[in-house]
Amino acid sequence: MVNINQGFLQLQNNYLFSEVAKRVENYQKEYPNKKIIRLGIGDVTLPIPEVITNAIKKAADEMSQKESFRGYGPEQGYAFLKEKIVVYDYQARGIDFNTDEVFVSDGAKCDVGNILDLFDRENCVAITDPVYPVYLDTNIMAGRSEKQGNIVFMKAVKENKFQPLPEELEKHVDIIYLCSPNNPTGVAMKKKVLEKWIEYAQKENSIILYDAAYEAYIEGEGVVHSIYEIDGAKKVAIEFKSFSKTAGFTGLRCAYTIIPKELEVNGVKLNELWKRRMATKFNGVSYVVQRGAEAVYTKEGQKVIRQNIEYYKENARVIKKGLEEAGYEVYGGENAPYIWLKTPDHIKSWDFLDMLLEKANVVGTPGVGFGKNGEGYFRLTAFGDREETKMAIKRIKELGV
Amino acid sequence: MVNINQGFLQLQNNYLFSEVAKRVENYQKEYPNKKIIRLGIGDVTLPIPEVITNAIKKAADEMSQKESFRGYGPEQGYAFLKEKIVVYDYQARGIDFNTDEVFVSDGAKCDVGNILDLFDRENCVAITDPVYPVYLDTNIMAGRSEKQGNIVFMKAVKENKFQPLPEELEKHVDIIYLCSPNNPTGVAMKKKVLEKWIEYAQKENSIILYDAAYEAYIEGEGVVHSIYEIDGAKKVAIEFKSFSKTAGFTGLRCAYTIIPKELEVNGVKLNELWKRRMATKFNGVSYVVQRGAEAVYTKEGQKVIRQNIEYYKENARVIKKGLEEAGYEVYGGENAPYIWLKTPDHIKSWDFLDMLLEKANVVGTPGVGFGKNGEGYFRLTAFGDREETKMAIKRIKELGV
Repeated sequence: MVNINQGFLQLQNNYLFSEVAKRVENYQKEYPNKKIIRLGIGDVTLPIPEVITNAIKKAADEMSQKESFRGYGPEQGYAFLKEKIVVYDYQARGIDFNTDEVFVSDGAKCDVGNILDLFDRENCVAITDPVYPVYLDTNIMAGRSEKQGNIVFMKAVKENKFQPLPEELEKHVDIIYLCSPNNPTGVAMKKKVLEKWIEYAQKENSIILYDAAYEAYIEGEGVVHSIYEIDGAKKVAIEFKSFSKTAGFTGLRCAYTIIPKELEVNGVKLNELWKRRMATKFNGVSYVVQRGAEAVYTKEGQKVIRQNIEYYKENARVIKKGLEEAGYEVYGGENAPYIWLKTPDHIKSWDFLDMLLEKANVVGTPGVGFGKNGEGYFRLTAFGDREETKMAIKRIKELGV
Repeated sequence: MVNINQGFLQLQNNYLFSEVAKRVENYQKEYPNKKIIRLGIGDVTLPIPEVITNAIKKAADEMSQKESFRGYGPEQGYAFLKEKIVVYDYQARGIDFNTDEVFVSDGAKCDVGNILDLFDRENCVAITDPVYPVYLDTNIMAGRSEKQGNIVFMKAVKENKFQPLPEELEKHVDIIYLCSPNNPTGVAMKKKVLEKWIEYAQKENSIILYDAAYEAYIEGEGVVHSIYEIDGAKKVAIEFKSFSKTAGFTGLRCAYTIIPKELEVNGVKLNELWKRRMATKFNGVSYVVQRGAEAVYTKEGQKVIRQNIEYYKENARVIKKGLEEAGYEVYGGENAPYIWLKTPDHIKSWDFLDMLLEKANVVGTPGVGFGKNGEGYFRLTAFGDREETKMAIKRIKELGV
């Protein structure tokens, strides 16, 4: 008799965003005239620059002509896109890769989940708390659990500046998830902290899964844009990047993952394993979308996506400054589109949601939804409309702390 | 210390198409003036109809405007596409589904591989020999093996008309892969054979993974277009379908999978598990591509894709008829874009490749590359250009058997 993967039965119901939506809906039903401002979900709102949509349209036209039609593409992505990634995202920062160390995919979320295919189920993984829920859920699906001892949580709290350190680990771990700039805390890890993790991974023969989906928002000193800026990282780290928050591709779907050839486990190159995995379980990203992603690297493309990122970063500044003026304790928002605020008077995250919804008609995300250390915190995103963001902060300020 | 998934080390090197390409390249180098005709790889060659590329372009324009921009879409696909699938691909055949039983994805290959996430590793799977290599490789990646006894091969040979029967199984199996019309044999399973499999799955509490990627090529009597035309299938079968071979989407990427709500394992709905899997490890198909897929169901879309399928089907007839006239023993080609020919005089598959390449300058795929029962067979595809296909057959006829 067929049996299901028991891991699925261990998953917590992921009701975070649906519960938020339900509460908002109920409130709106009761007060249909209230204008609610949503700063909850981490999705972009600015349209795709025309230099990108024009490239997509041109590619669609090519597909409609016999001479320029393209069928199956390379599962790991077209060279025209991988070359741009190498030149603009790495060589420009003094890091060199061959194009066969770049794997183009339809999303960083997909890659972060699917990468677990490569590892033995007995491996112990370390994830932060609070955390992007995909890291935890995909490991539970893969058969790991805290109870069995192969999922370990690392506190990301005020006391460690939301940056867990290797020395805080209570036991050896094989796979470490680091997300920087972080979702949900908005904190970018300092280079010095990352260096400690690289050292740990080298000493312990561990692997770092480095999620850099929000890298484009970094502006500060002492923070790296790629983990490969750190010596030795090529031997121990896989980097995940995305066009979603950089160029607004959340609905178009394109991302990439770097697996250096130097990265070996027991003499086996993970690059080769991932290549095989992609060839077997994936068929490449849509040609038209890859042409769109390529246009991100044109001069015009670079200019307009930078403007869009600056727009969101200005929103982040508006939120951060406004909340600080209102007396809130605020983290993130400098190198990231997320603001992580401490609720006043130890109000619980969900109670703060209700309060903010009712009194300011502003929606955010309860921090506890990202893990128990998120209790008493609340996430706001900078992806909204500028005027709405300003209005939201004005209302919060009027509330007082 | 981190360990890799040992399953990956058990994979055979998949050198089938690369070895074919190498031999062709070597031959072409030696004889640069010879015009080689390629009927090997199963990829389409006709361009995408403009009704589809126009829909993609319109969607790209929508994405470039703030009012019509769309960010993250539903992971399981947009309702506008799922509704069309239900109406045109199922209700038109008297089968009813809700849209939440349809999951839009970026490829049938991806889904066929990823679906294994839902099942316990101890489950025993049955696959045919010869077989589409993805079924075997994804199970080996998931930790199964013939040696451990949880991969079982079913002969698909002349003696059983390339349609394995449940009574031929030597032991109980939990998961059964059926591909119809079949890749590589080109044979569509008879309804009566499928009924036996449904009965088996019901009695044994097994699951059927039904790959119907080539369904659009079916024309004969006694053959079903969907497994759900058979009573009871909703309780035991998952159906995989694709726009690749129907509407030329091999480079655009869109497919779908049906998991009926009636399908339960120990009281757990697989529909719910897959929904959770999609939400956790996938972010939906590109909006512009889904709009393209939607256009397949317009009146114009239906007309032109039907013309394209007929074009390939005529190629299949040309190949089949020509080979039969030349004295070959030929299978498939009626309900499928694949022709499975028996090599004359027990020539081995790879030797036949060399012979055909050298003497007729025609390339196909050695049957043994799909499994040991493919030895002595050879696959030709109907996806080529008409004139080239005719020329290839003329040359083969001139060779004699």
